[in-house]
Amino acid sequence: MDLKEYLEQTANQVDALIDRYFGSACDNLGKASAHLLLAGGKRLRPAVLLLSADAVKKGSSIDLQPAALALELTHSFTLIHDDIMDGDEVRRGVPTVHTRWNEPTAILAGDVLFASAFEFLTMSDCPDNAKVRATSMLARTCVEICEGQHLDMSFEERDDVSEGEYLKMVEKKTGALYAASAGIGSILAGGNPSYSSALYHFGQGIGMAFQIQDDLIDLLAPPEVSGKDQASDIREGKKTLIHIKALEKGYDLSPFKRRLSPGEIEEIIATLKKLGVIAEVQGIAENLVKTGIKRISILPPSEERDLLIQMGDHFIRRSY
Amino acid sequence: MDLKEYLEQTANQVDALIDRYFGSACDNLGKASAHLLLAGGKRLRPAVLLLSADAVKKGSSIDLQPAALALELTHSFTLIHDDIMDGDEVRRGVPTVHTRWNEPTAILAGDVLFASAFEFLTMSDCPDNAKVRATSMLARTCVEICEGQHLDMSFEERDDVSEGEYLKMVEKKTGALYAASAGIGSILAGGNPSYSSALYHFGQGIGMAFQIQDDLIDLLAPPEVSGKDQASDIREGKKTLIHIKALEKGYDLSPFKRRLSPGEIEEIIATLKKLGVIAEVQGIAENLVKTGIKRISILPPSEERDLLIQMGDHFIRRSY
Repeated sequence: MDLKEYLEQTANQVDALIDRYFGSACDNLGKASAHLLLAGGKRLRPAVLLLSADAVKKGSSIDLQPAALALELTHSFTLIHDDIMDGDEVRRGVPTVHTRWNEPTAILAGDVLFASAFEFLTMSDCPDNAKVRATSMLARTCVEICEGQHLDMSFEERDDVSEGEYLKMVEKKTGALYAASAGIGSILAGGNPSYSSALYHFGQGIGMAFQIQDDLIDLLAPPEVSGKDQASDIREGKKTLIHIKALEKGYDLSPFKRRLSPGEIEEIIATLKKLGVIAEVQGIAENLVKTGIKRISILPPSEERDLLIQMGDHFIRRSY
Repeated sequence: MDLKEYLEQTANQVDALIDRYFGSACDNLGKASAHLLLAGGKRLRPAVLLLSADAVKKGSSIDLQPAALALELTHSFTLIHDDIMDGDEVRRGVPTVHTRWNEPTAILAGDVLFASAFEFLTMSDCPDNAKVRATSMLARTCVEICEGQHLDMSFEERDDVSEGEYLKMVEKKTGALYAASAGIGSILAGGNPSYSSALYHFGQGIGMAFQIQDDLIDLLAPPEVSGKDQASDIREGKKTLIHIKALEKGYDLSPFKRRLSPGEIEEIIATLKKLGVIAEVQGIAENLVKTGIKRISILPPSEERDLLIQMGDHFIRRSY
């Protein structure tokens, strides 16, 4: 099976669970909780969890569907709360929860998914000691995600964010949940500690690379490809790795924190390419994936390990 | 030991844990998460958890301190998010988290405590199967709390809230966490299912009574006793049991949804007393406690069971 096929199959499974458990809410809070879940999504974290489980114990993923759902619920909870904080109005082509309903309902909808994640995590068919370790890992991960989001917001007011600080933020904000997806998959499947640790760090690395690639796409992809506004990070003054690396080379993107014409964006991209910024940022993402893949080379060879490797590569090759 | 002494002792234990784990945060998010926790509190939910544990297995509470803390963290998380939704500016004599910092930080601070609650729940020294059941119960409880808060907010726009609807709201918003405190205490201590169920329903009943008593205190207690604004519920048009029972007797409190003079408040109280509303509402709270106490009569007699009974009585006798 190739990666595309596998991801489609997993997405269908997760969609079916979402439909079963969240598809028929009739009250406002239930509908608000289900809103973003039902608007689609690539279900990448569940896929990482299930692949990791099968990579340490073939066939174990069948019993871990609720845990896979738990990771998607956690992701959706963070999106709902982040959208409130960032004041974003559209996500996945639909109005964000606080826009469609209101802020109090959106806070509660996020909280409901947060709690549901822990409920589903305990529902998988696996030993209790594994569930306890998985619960603890998911809880710690959620604290890290909050810390990452808080760091990200604090960066907006600062001009001196270092590469190290940026990477720490991305590790928490995006890396942690991919790390937990892979780590929890291994733990629940009964993987030994060295496998679980390898998968955890693999997930962390590809998760961080995923976010860096997101930043590259934001700048480089035309709206008709990405479905998003081009160069929104520069316009909003976000301290991405691109911003930090450009500044290191004496090119300050701060003055472009304003409406930008397509021509201006083209010019900025050309300058960044000439300075080697784009290549350097791509190189950092590639290294994160490469190091992650190296970590899981200790796992026995399997179709699932290969798919995980493909997934890491896909995270930095994708253009939307 | 009498109840007052026991509660003081538990509060000291919980305060020491809070100080250890949350007392030395130096970043903004850490400080915001710790803010309300450090502002004090009666730590009633931890006390219910520890008493319930000892009531089913003497001495078991010693190993359950992290779980007791988990319940206080959950309570604190709900306060932080509720304060945002309700726009409240002061709590426990200090500015609320979104007032002292800002809304995004308050959302994240609540989320951090929410996640930490699950982390601490897994840290108690007890069998894994008990921890999994406790995790599941806490998760389900958090969903209920959100539903209760959402119902409560939706009542503000309605004039036809029934007694049954009010009691359902209070069951979720306040009863559920006391129910979980008692139920989790029993589960983690290895209590048999009938003990755990009895304690769960005891907690639910006294928790609901606690909220009804809160509504009575809001109306009846002068500010110098309660430390709060008198009759704020009437001024804000809250659909409390008092409001609902008064309306049943043809006395509509809606027109008093405005600034009220001390004389007006006195007059409203006199009318409600004459109509028998106060006595009827007190009777409902008393019945909830009485039924709860009856549930735990199946437990073997113990000092801790007696303290739980005293606690139920205290919940409806307290005047602040």
